[in-house]
Amino acid sequence: MMGGNDQQAYDRGTSLFSPDGRIYQVEYAREAVSRGAPSVGVRTAEGVVFVAMSRASSTLMEAESIEKLHKLDDHVGTASAGHVADARQLIDFARRQAQGNRLRYGEPVGVEALTKYVTDHVQENTQRGGTRPYGAALLIGGIENGEPRLFAADPSGTPNEWKATVIGGGRKAIQEVLEEEWSEDLSLDDGVGLGIRALAARDDELEPGDLAVATITDADGYHTVPEDEVAAAFDAAGIEVPDDDADADDADDADDADDDADADDAE
Amino acid sequence: MMGGNDQQAYDRGTSLFSPDGRIYQVEYAREAVSRGAPSVGVRTAEGVVFVAMSRASSTLMEAESIEKLHKLDDHVGTASAGHVADARQLIDFARRQAQGNRLRYGEPVGVEALTKYVTDHVQENTQRGGTRPYGAALLIGGIENGEPRLFAADPSGTPNEWKATVIGGGRKAIQEVLEEEWSEDLSLDDGVGLGIRALAARDDELEPGDLAVATITDADGYHTVPEDEVAAAFDAAGIEVPDDDADADDADDADDADDDADADDAE
Amino acid sequence: MMGGNDQQAYDRGTSLFSPDGRIYQVEYAREAVSRGAPSVGVRTAEGVVFVAMSRASSTLMEAESIEKLHKLDDHVGTASAGHVADARQLIDFARRQAQGNRLRYGEPVGVEALTKYVTDHVQENTQRGGTRPYGAALLIGGIENGEPRLFAADPSGTPNEWKATVIGGGRKAIQEVLEEEWSEDLSLDDGVGLGIRALAARDDELEPGDLAVATITDADGYHTVPEDEVAAAFDAAGIEVPDDDADADDADDADDADDDADADDAE
Amino acid sequence: MMGGNDQQAYDRGTSLFSPDGRIYQVEYAREAVSRGAPSVGVRTAEGVVFVAMSRASSTLMEAESIEKLHKLDDHVGTASAGHVADARQLIDFARRQAQGNRLRYGEPVGVEALTKYVTDHVQENTQRGGTRPYGAALLIGGIENGEPRLFAADPSGTPNEWKATVIGGGRKAIQEVLEEEWSEDLSLDDGVGLGIRALAARDDELEPGDLAVATITDADGYHTVPEDEVAAAFDAAGIEVPDDDADADDADDADDADDDADADDAE
Amino acid sequence: MMGGNDQQAYDRGTSLFSPDGRIYQVEYAREAVSRGAPSVGVRTAEGVVFVAMSRASSTLMEAESIEKLHKLDDHVGTASAGHVADARQLIDFARRQAQGNRLRYGEPVGVEALTKYVTDHVQENTQRGGTRPYGAALLIGGIENGEPRLFAADPSGTPNEWKATVIGGGRKAIQEVLEEEWSEDLSLDDGVGLGIRALAARDDELEPGDLAVATITDADGYHTVPEDEVAAAFDAAGIEVPDDDADADDADDADDADDDADADDAE
Amino acid sequence: MMGGNDQQAYDRGTSLFSPDGRIYQVEYAREAVSRGAPSVGVRTAEGVVFVAMSRASSTLMEAESIEKLHKLDDHVGTASAGHVADARQLIDFARRQAQGNRLRYGEPVGVEALTKYVTDHVQENTQRGGTRPYGAALLIGGIENGEPRLFAADPSGTPNEWKATVIGGGRKAIQEVLEEEWSEDLSLDDGVGLGIRALAARDDELEPGDLAVATITDADGYHTVPEDEVAAAFDAAGIEVPDDDADADDADDADDADDDADADDAE
Amino acid sequence: MMGGNDQQAYDRGTSLFSPDGRIYQVEYAREAVSRGAPSVGVRTAEGVVFVAMSRASSTLMEAESIEKLHKLDDHVGTASAGHVADARQLIDFARRQAQGNRLRYGEPVGVEALTKYVTDHVQENTQRGGTRPYGAALLIGGIENGEPRLFAADPSGTPNEWKATVIGGGRKAIQEVLEEEWSEDLSLDDGVGLGIRALAARDDELEPGDLAVATITDADGYHTVPEDEVAAAFDAAGIEVPDDDADADDADDADDADDDADADDAE
Repeated sequence: MMGGNDQQAYDRGTSLFSPDGRIYQVEYAREAVSRGAPSVGVRTAEGVVFVAMSRASSTLMEAESIEKLHKLDDHVGTASAGHVADARQLIDFARRQAQGNRLRYGEPVGVEALTKYVTDHVQENTQRGGTRPYGAALLIGGIENGEPRLFAADPSGTPNEWKATVIGGGRKAIQEVLEEEWSEDLSLDDGVGLGIRALAARDDELEPGDLAVATITDADGYHTVPEDEVAAAFDAAGIEVPDDDADADDADDADDADDDADADDAE
Repeated sequence: MMGGNDQQAYDRGTSLFSPDGRIYQVEYAREAVSRGAPSVGVRTAEGVVFVAMSRASSTLMEAESIEKLHKLDDHVGTASAGHVADARQLIDFARRQAQGNRLRYGEPVGVEALTKYVTDHVQENTQRGGTRPYGAALLIGGIENGEPRLFAADPSGTPNEWKATVIGGGRKAIQEVLEEEWSEDLSLDDGVGLGIRALAARDDELEPGDLAVATITDADGYHTVPEDEVAAAFDAAGIEVPDDDADADDADDADDADDDADADDAE
Repeated sequence: MMGGNDQQAYDRGTSLFSPDGRIYQVEYAREAVSRGAPSVGVRTAEGVVFVAMSRASSTLMEAESIEKLHKLDDHVGTASAGHVADARQLIDFARRQAQGNRLRYGEPVGVEALTKYVTDHVQENTQRGGTRPYGAALLIGGIENGEPRLFAADPSGTPNEWKATVIGGGRKAIQEVLEEEWSEDLSLDDGVGLGIRALAARDDELEPGDLAVATITDADGYHTVPEDEVAAAFDAAGIEVPDDDADADDADDADDADDDADADDAE
Repeated sequence: MMGGNDQQAYDRGTSLFSPDGRIYQVEYAREAVSRGAPSVGVRTAEGVVFVAMSRASSTLMEAESIEKLHKLDDHVGTASAGHVADARQLIDFARRQAQGNRLRYGEPVGVEALTKYVTDHVQENTQRGGTRPYGAALLIGGIENGEPRLFAADPSGTPNEWKATVIGGGRKAIQEVLEEEWSEDLSLDDGVGLGIRALAARDDELEPGDLAVATITDADGYHTVPEDEVAAAFDAAGIEVPDDDADADDADDADDADDDADADDAE
Repeated sequence: MMGGNDQQAYDRGTSLFSPDGRIYQVEYAREAVSRGAPSVGVRTAEGVVFVAMSRASSTLMEAESIEKLHKLDDHVGTASAGHVADARQLIDFARRQAQGNRLRYGEPVGVEALTKYVTDHVQENTQRGGTRPYGAALLIGGIENGEPRLFAADPSGTPNEWKATVIGGGRKAIQEVLEEEWSEDLSLDDGVGLGIRALAARDDELEPGDLAVATITDADGYHTVPEDEVAAAFDAAGIEVPDDDADADDADDADDADDDADADDAE
Repeated sequence: MMGGNDQQAYDRGTSLFSPDGRIYQVEYAREAVSRGAPSVGVRTAEGVVFVAMSRASSTLMEAESIEKLHKLDDHVGTASAGHVADARQLIDFARRQAQGNRLRYGEPVGVEALTKYVTDHVQENTQRGGTRPYGAALLIGGIENGEPRLFAADPSGTPNEWKATVIGGGRKAIQEVLEEEWSEDLSLDDGVGLGIRALAARDDELEPGDLAVATITDADGYHTVPEDEVAAAFDAAGIEVPDDDADADDADDADDADDDADADDAE
Repeated sequence: MMGGNDQQAYDRGTSLFSPDGRIYQVEYAREAVSRGAPSVGVRTAEGVVFVAMSRASSTLMEAESIEKLHKLDDHVGTASAGHVADARQLIDFARRQAQGNRLRYGEPVGVEALTKYVTDHVQENTQRGGTRPYGAALLIGGIENGEPRLFAADPSGTPNEWKATVIGGGRKAIQEVLEEEWSEDLSLDDGVGLGIRALAARDDELEPGDLAVATITDADGYHTVPEDEVAAAFDAAGIEVPDDDADADDADDADDADDDADADDAE
């Protein structure tokens, strides 16, 4: 996206502008997000749906340990993309804010307020010296005053509210599916299906096992969708699962990619 | 505006002068403002008007989340341009100052005083090490002692009072319209119309949906103008709305520009 | 004044000497002052006169907001030149010192003492790391023990007492007029006239509207001269006002120079 | 893996992103881990097994002083790889956290919680200035709520849960053996055998004396397997021990490699 | 005195040695002193004499504001040379030490002790980071235990005691006169005359108005010699005053040199 | 061992990794150790023996002031190699830890625990900014629970336990002798002899006067072996002392090497 | 001693090692010592003798102000060489330590202990960032438990005990004389004579006036030898004083060298 000698002059200090008004360290942090697997968030009439892709680099890795979806509070959750260790810090930060809000005010934090706690913290890391930006993005979604709301927080610290969006790699193709198919009156199941189809638009070999799904509704709060229901939703979404051979190939790919994947903490 | 090797020597340290007496980091921060969509402020006989342009990068983005207009206190508001995350920090800073003023002195802060709290803070970030300037500009307007007042705060930390002005991209063309059409006895509605016409001067395909409008009057304080009234004012301002085809094209443009816009936090 | 590769080695650190014993950052800060519009101070038998030039970059900018003249205490005022945001910081600093002096000692601060508070603060910013020098100069004048006194404070932090002097752009031509025409027994009105003539020596198209004038006398303290009196003094000073066409041209110039002026905070 | 001039620009500051979204200092820290001897962790039905390789650089070095396996708490242990002095700091940090947890909550720390204490600390060293990342990786394993669990913590601060994995040099070949042979119902002895075979896959001359083995079970907690049992397990694992001549050669190798090994603290 | 590329490597950090054991920043600070007008100190049998040269850059500058001679305590004074703002800081520092000494010990500070307070402070600025050396030198003289004593403090922080010496520009020629003409039994008037002759040796157009003279004696303490007595001493010293034409020329020179002198704070 | 431009990029910051996972400042600190004279430690059945080589650079230097062997506590001592001033800091640090341990716990510190206090401190200087690694290595030996133990601490902060080892220059040749001759049942005298023979293997002209010897036993604690006993042990070790002529030559060598040795603090 | 590009990479940061294990800033600080005039210390049977050379750069400089010999406590003194301002700081530090020791323990500090206070402080300045090493060396000598002892402290912070030694310029030639002539049973007068002869070996034109001499004995403590006794000892030492003409030449030399000497604070 950028190149040449001019660029080198500006990207060494975390908090400097380039002559064209960009903060390169922030843009490079976005690249770290783009290197990660995508996470989709869909706001439906019934609640917020998160569908995250995370394929383990080895068959021995516990899939659930590649945590992309997290509960932040009873009615608020998050999906992450990018540098895993950075994302974990942000998620911990968000949880502490949610807990602190309950302690201080005796009530759960709002989705928008929680997003802004996070983005304020993220922005500080783009302006003060002695640190680098966070190389992770978060979707933060939940129920606020009975209404589902969905926000995205990027490495610059900008919060935006969305009907449906995606963070991480392959955003263009995925967002196109969301824009084409999203409507105001989606049911929760519709939202899960849309999230799966959107991710499948970018990955021909997507399988149910590559996905984690969570929902947040007024009635049930944050809810992790069990693996069998994800598989059923996968079928319902009309995605063709690659046959066994392809599956085996894919496992081989995972093996072959092992050393590379290890050197890469953006998942 | 500047170029060559000489320049590189001075722009790496946030708080250094170049041989011709410029502080390049401040000038680059201004470039960050110029990359953003414009916001117009108009002082009228009845109060202050803000008209801000913000076109969402996706049809799924909640337009109101691209917050360009904000209430700071009962009779004071702000319009921003430039790096969104930076602008949010400045807006939060201004709000805390307004609240603090009420707590300390039992009365609302004046528009000029509030502007200077902000510009003092902005200036510090251009002189002390360990930080970068803010890549955002603010218009701060409201009612002070019954009179409407309008100020602009730029990335150097310079406050200026204006009858009508614009911050963000395309300033020259927009300011020309303001200078030609502004008069002391504008009504509030005149002010809204002038703001819309000024922004239209720079953008052939401007639509009511691209605009946010707010007014601050002695009687009603800070008031967000609802979308239908903006559309009506748009018609009244005599701006030709592009036809549906053009509209569709525009939506396509937004889609096409998706990846670029994501990489850009100046809105 | 300086140039070449040698220079680059020394100007990156705020507080380093060059081999010839110069502190380049201080000299570059002086360049920032030279980029600004000039301010003249004249000590007369009756009091101190400040005449400052400040032409707004747009007809919609409130001229009084380009504050060049400020009251610091009952009998002390200041005129500034250079980087506007820096000058404002110094003026605030001077005001706080004046107030603090009253609180601590129960009496107004002397003109010389106040100047030295300011220059001590300015000098520190030329010696300690983590900051840059102030890109602004101040004239500080007033009545001390019944006598008018006038000081200049430059970006190195050097205080000097003057009978009459100028800070900002075009100093050489302006100072020559002051040296030729100043005498010990000038009346206050003579001083205003001399200040205007001196500024006119550098600017063929000077108009009363471009000027701000203030006086400090034992009897009346700090006094802002109203616009009509400035115009009268302008006539009395025998300056030929350019005709309307020229005036219109000048307004065009202001418009044409708009974008440039915006990028420049030295006014 | 990387090269050229571009890279040099980014690797001098510990906490900066490169244009492609990588944090080179973290990747170089991973190289420090790859330079070390491998440590294997295997989760079995009965508990967690650690098998670590550490060949002394001299016959006079006390083998047990090249500590690769450590007890962290009654039912939690760790295996390390990479820069020895860094690993020791992390192990001490983990122990203090385990002790603190007992003091604060009156109960032992969970394996996952302890891992995350460590990875949070590791991540901070990749983001804050004034430090470098840790050049060491840890396997942390133990019994939590009666169940064996095994985690890996890498220099980026990313925690992952594993059924069986390896850290340190030669990972690809070793992990392949683990993936082929691991099954859910392994006994503790099976686990020891698998760990030995996996390490042998990378080193033709592996001997029992090069290995340290520890197990963590609900019944016995952290248990260091004595040397004779390691030798027996070695035989049971069907690894062919090189004959005496080869052994002597190997000792010579150790001698010859002496000076090099001394200059290398990744073991 | 120095030159080439080697030098550049060492002078960027304030507190580093060059390979030949020099601290370049200290040597450059000495150059700042050499750029200033000279100040002479003469120890006589009756007391210490200071004769300082300071020619105002404009006829409108108050000569006494170019303060080169200062009272530090009842029987101690100082003459400065070099960067004016730095010298002022050192003089303030010395005054505070003198006052503090009276408060702590109830007696005036000795001349030698006061000099060492100053040089300790100056030395610190040559060794600690985050600052630059002082670009000024001081002569400190006075009466200690009834005896006149004279010290010089240079930018390295080295104190030396002198019978008579000079700091600032043109030292070699001036010191030669002092060495030829100084004797132990000089009267105070002899000392003033010697100081004037020494300065005249370097400047053909020296006039009484260019000089400031002060004496410190046991009987009268610090005493500023009035202008008429300086003129009389000037005549008595047998210096030929340039005629009026030359004087006018000199004034022209001052005018011509105006812009240059402004850019130079070493006076 | 290393070279070229790549290297320069990594060795300027104390705590950065190179692309191959090395910390160059630590490796250069090891070079500082290699420049020093060697110190040997031998664990025997009766206690620990230290034999250190230190040849004075002048016949007038007091040999005992080139302190290489130090008592740390009643039953613990140390031998050092490398940068002398750094070694002294570490030795003082170790002594304070030993004293503190007695104060806190009422008992002497263990040899292993003391070594780890030291290596933790050494490691910190390889990871935190604002400092450099220690350019010294220590052998720490003594009696712990009645058993002799011997540890080495290198500039990376890695502790290792040894039966016998050497730090400082010429390690390879010396360690070979130790490996060939060391056995578990050495008497204390055997240990002294082995240490002397090992050092002689590297230096043809070794004389008793070049050696310092100390022993630590359970019965006698730390004991400095007197010079005559060292000479006797030297004879007993079968080392041929060079004749007088060679001795004189050696003294000349010391003289000739005077200036070089002065410039070198690794002894 | 060193040269080329490699070197430049390592000498900019005060506390970094070069690839060959040197700390260049320390070695450059030694160069600063070598640029200074030499100071000799001689331990005799009766006490310690200091003979320091210091030729004033002008006949008007008070020779005693070029203080090279200083009393630190009743029975301890010091001789310095190198950067004068740095030496003064070290001497003040040593004095404060001596006073503190008396306050804390009620007894005078030992010569060795005092030396180590100083060298610890010196070493810190070679390891911590934000400062440079001291460019000065000290000889510290005195009576400890009735015995004369003599130590040298160099810029690395290494203490060494000596029978007789020299610090500063021309060490090789001077140390040779000391080594040839020193014996255990020297009287105090012998020691003074040896010191003078040693210094004369390097300077053909040495005169009594160039020397300062002090002795420390158990009976008399620190004693400054008066000028006439120095002259007598000079004669007794058999040094030929250059005739008057040479003397005059020498004075001329001092004059000629004036400007150079001023630029040099190593005396």
